[in-house]
Parts: sequence; structure tokens; C-alpha cells
Amino acid sequence: MARPSVREQLVEGAVECFHLRGFNGTGIQDIARAAGVPKGSVYNHFASKEALAAEVLERYAASRDLARLDDAALAPLPRLRAHFAYLADDLARFSFERGCLFGTFGAELSNQSDMLRGRVESGLAAWTEAVVRVLDEARAAGDLTGPLAPERLGPFLVEAWEGAVLRAKVTRSRDPLDGFFAVLDALTA
Amino acid sequence: MARPSVREQLVEGAVECFHLRGFNGTGIQDIARAAGVPKGSVYNHFASKEALAAEVLERYAASRDLARLDDAALAPLPRLRAHFAYLADDLARFSFERGCLFGTFGAELSNQSDMLRGRVESGLAAWTEAVVRVLDEARAAGDLTGPLAPERLGPFLVEAWEGAVLRAKVTRSRDPLDGFFAVLDALTA
Repeated sequence: MARPSVREQLVEGAVECFHLRGFNGTGIQDIARAAGVPKGSVYNHFASKEALAAEVLERYAASRDLARLDDAALAPLPRLRAHFAYLADDLARFSFERGCLFGTFGAELSNQSDMLRGRVESGLAAWTEAVVRVLDEARAAGDLTGPLAPERLGPFLVEAWEGAVLRAKVTRSRDPLDGFFAVLDALTA
Repeated sequence: MARPSVREQLVEGAVECFHLRGFNGTGIQDIARAAGVPKGSVYNHFASKEALAAEVLERYAASRDLARLDDAALAPLPRLRAHFAYLADDLARFSFERGCLFGTFGAELSNQSDMLRGRVESGLAAWTEAVVRVLDEARAAGDLTGPLAPERLGPFLVEAWEGAVLRAKVTRSRDPLDGFFAVLDALTA
């Protein structure tokens, strides 16, 4: 395999650092160290820490694997559950020390960088739209019969997930995610 | 009214700063400026920024007015709804620029300060216990008949609220809170 470029090493290092310590808790020196490159090289590749964070967010959004939410190989409701199970496994891999980067940046930066606030907003919006589409499919198939319309339930599920992930990080435990799945099952029965 | 003490001014200034810019986004100088006191006086009153943040969290927890969740003047489910409506009004007052301090500190500091992580954890636990008590009361009164037990629904509601508040902050909008209330009503019907 070809050696990753310095730019790629920087993005990967920044993913680690921002995920664990947030934007303001991460210095350029931390990112350079995690990337294994000299500190001076950061500004050769990115105009600012903010620009690097925007790229990290884009990479993070892609890793959410939203395309699978549109993959008709699974019926809509099992597909939705598999999506959140995939995200839960990713958190378990890191012993719940990492939260969701949308959540971490949203909490930390909404009043500090309008650019990054906008990126978080549009990342969450794309995710929510994909969840609503699956719920619409389930509704059309007669699998979702509860009182809540997909356009109400979809955003709520995304937000409830964000809250559960935050609490999993605070308590270092899977319990909040298990609670999310129990309510998901009740709401999509 | 007596002039507030310097210590009190510092705590009030720190509440503002931490709420708007988080822990790592706030410098000691910002807090001193918000408090209208000299920077040097901060360390006369608090051993560290972390110690000041712990006091701010305690103050914030008290402002959640959990006692009203145990006030039998209202029936349990209207009381629970009034509790979240009170929190929503508080966020609207600040145009949704402020999130929940438990959420902000939890997202930002869980891997940075075990002391503050523990304070957030216990603050959320006390709140959750109060919510579960109201749901238990509602269950005993025959007002809560859904499939989810109070000890499952209570934590979920607190987490869903945290996620909705985060998204309200990211989108600068009340919509996520309205969505929360719609689902709350469906889950407690």
C-alpha cells in the first residue's frame, strides 16, 4: 500500500484528536504529533484549524455510511435498526470514550464558528433526511402504524440518538444505547 | 440589595462564559471580564478553572428546579410536561444560543477531567431519578399505560431532551424542542 500523504496523515490525526478532546481542547501540536509530522507542515496543507475541522467533519459524515439507509436489501425497519447498531458498534470499539463528532462540535462550536455550525447543521440534516426516507418506506409498506409521522419521528430519533451517545460517553457505558434501542423498538412497533 | 461578592460575580460571569463558549473556549480573562473584576482575583477565590467549573455546574443543576418534579400540586404527567416547558422557556430566553451545560461539558470534558465528568454524570443521574419518580407516580395512578417501564422511559426522555437541545443550539430554532414535546405526548399517552 502506498504511504499516505502528509495531508491524509493530518486528517487522520485530527479525527483522533478532535474526537477525543474536541476542537478547543486540541492544539495544532497535538494534531501534528498524532499525525507523526512536523508541526510546521499543518499550515502547508490547511489554512486554519477550522479548515482542517471542516474536512474532518466531512470525512466523519461519510463514515456514517448513510447509503446503507437506502439499500433495499433489508426491509425498512430492520435496516434502520441495523444503521443504529452499526453506529453503536463503532462507539463500543472505542469503549464509549468517543461521542458523535456532530454532537461534540455542535455543543462546543455553535457560538464560535458559524462555518462549522453550518457544517454540523447540514450533516445532521442529511442524516435526518435519510432516516425519514426509511420511515416513509416503512409507512408505505404498512410496517409503521404508530401515531407519529415519519417527518416527526425521524428528527426525534436522530436527536435521541445524539443524547444517548452523549450519555454513553459521560457514563462510559452502553446502557444509554440499549435504552435507545428499546424505545426505538416500541416507537416502530 | 447588597453588592454581590467578588466570588459571586465570578461564578455568575463563569456561568455566562461557559454556557456560550464551553470550558476550553473560555479563558480566565474572559471570566474576569464578564464578572467585572481583575483577572488576578480569580485565583484568590478558586484553585483552578476546573474548580470554578464544578461550582458553576452545581449552580446550574440547582437552577433546573428539580423540586418541582416532586410537587404534587400538579398531576404527574402534566407536571413532567411543565418541567420540560420550563427548561424550553429558559432556552428560548437566550434565542437557543445556549445549550444545556451538562451536555456541553459532557461532550467537551469527558476525556479531559474525570472530576467534571463525574459531576456531569451525577447531575444527569439526579435529574433522571426525579423524572423516573414522576413516571412511577403516573404509572401507579393508571395514567401511564404504554409498554415502556418508567426506569426505561425516564433516562430515554432525559437523553432525548439533551439531543433536542443540542440540535436547537445548532439550528438556532425551537423546532427540535417542539418535536420532543410531540413524542413526549405520544409516549405518555
